[in-house]
Amino acid sequence: MTGARTGRRAGDSGTRASILAAARDEFASHGYTGATIRAIAAAAAVDPALVHHYYGTKERLFAAAMELPVVPSEVLAAAIGSGKPGASLGTLLVRTALTIWQLPQAQATIAGLLRSAVTSERAAVMFREFLTDAILGTVGQAAGLDALGAGEAGFRAGLVASQMAGLALTRHVLVFPAVGAASVEDLAAAIGPTIDRYLTGEITDPERIGSKPP
Amino acid sequence: MTGARTGRRAGDSGTRASILAAARDEFASHGYTGATIRAIAAAAAVDPALVHHYYGTKERLFAAAMELPVVPSEVLAAAIGSGKPGASLGTLLVRTALTIWQLPQAQATIAGLLRSAVTSERAAVMFREFLTDAILGTVGQAAGLDALGAGEAGFRAGLVASQMAGLALTRHVLVFPAVGAASVEDLAAAIGPTIDRYLTGEITDPERIGSKPP
Repeated sequence: MTGARTGRRAGDSGTRASILAAARDEFASHGYTGATIRAIAAAAAVDPALVHHYYGTKERLFAAAMELPVVPSEVLAAAIGSGKPGASLGTLLVRTALTIWQLPQAQATIAGLLRSAVTSERAAVMFREFLTDAILGTVGQAAGLDALGAGEAGFRAGLVASQMAGLALTRHVLVFPAVGAASVEDLAAAIGPTIDRYLTGEITDPERIGSKPP
Repeated sequence: MTGARTGRRAGDSGTRASILAAARDEFASHGYTGATIRAIAAAAAVDPALVHHYYGTKERLFAAAMELPVVPSEVLAAAIGSGKPGASLGTLLVRTALTIWQLPQAQATIAGLLRSAVTSERAAVMFREFLTDAILGTVGQAAGLDALGAGEAGFRAGLVASQMAGLALTRHVLVFPAVGAASVEDLAAAIGPTIDRYLTGEITDPERIGSKPP
């Protein structure tokens, strides 16, 4: 067994490439939630422990397979942990996302992920599940969404996703001039409070409670 | 001349098809702003007056060429004009957009427009210019954006576009379950105030004015 592992280490980059290729297949076929490290290891014909050894978590493996420039939930958790006093969670999320998206290696990835999500239903499922789990999980936990009912938590998380996905689309793909050219701080000031409201604010029409229109 | 027109009328559907094909080419090549009825008529080898006679405005021609189920600015203007007292502009915009998007004939169009905008830079320009001119123009005028400087008006319009495009994406393409399943009224109550704030509310960080961070 040790001998076999040593053998694998000798072919490190080939093994890693096989794992990443298997991961892309499994994520595409079973979504982010449905894919397992065990199944990816089996498809790459390696021991699951080796996949854990190389990549640690499913999210890290996904980030490597999709060539994300960072591991989103780790960067978000770090940003939340080191946030300036007074900076709201929404402002931190917008600022962190915009900063990551500006990395040179992120440009092609954003366009590529949006392109495959829009053209392939399987990629859409994968993208949606990844956003929900890795990104909204981190932010949602910090906002206390996990204390809410699943329906309200999902609705609030979906509202956050709608604004963040639309921001990526208008800034990096459609490139609305004023949104493309705006500074990270101006966008964080404009959009951060939206995210805060979606996470923890009033999002229903008080007049409608118990009085559905005819 | 009258004879020639009568001749064209006899071949009505063929002429209309030629005009729509020419329109799609011109909009794709020159964007929504750059395309002109004159150039479209020339490409279809018809008199510009005939294009005006058939389609009236550039927006109506665009709507016909792209198979939009409605002419967006006309539906929006009607909704704004007939809005219930107390309904905010943002709520009207979200409610109207969601109602149009739910039309059976809109489903394929939304996915198709987003797909081409994400995969083709020319289509992205066309889509962005159309959104800015036809849709945000109507709403922006009602919100008084035209009284602002071009920079601020463009930024506010871009923020609105970011939320609305993201809503279309998460509800109809990525299909986040809670956003896809939500009622028009619940989404209008949640997102309408966001649009109102982007159009006319406070969108800068008051503490930052004159004190850019180092």
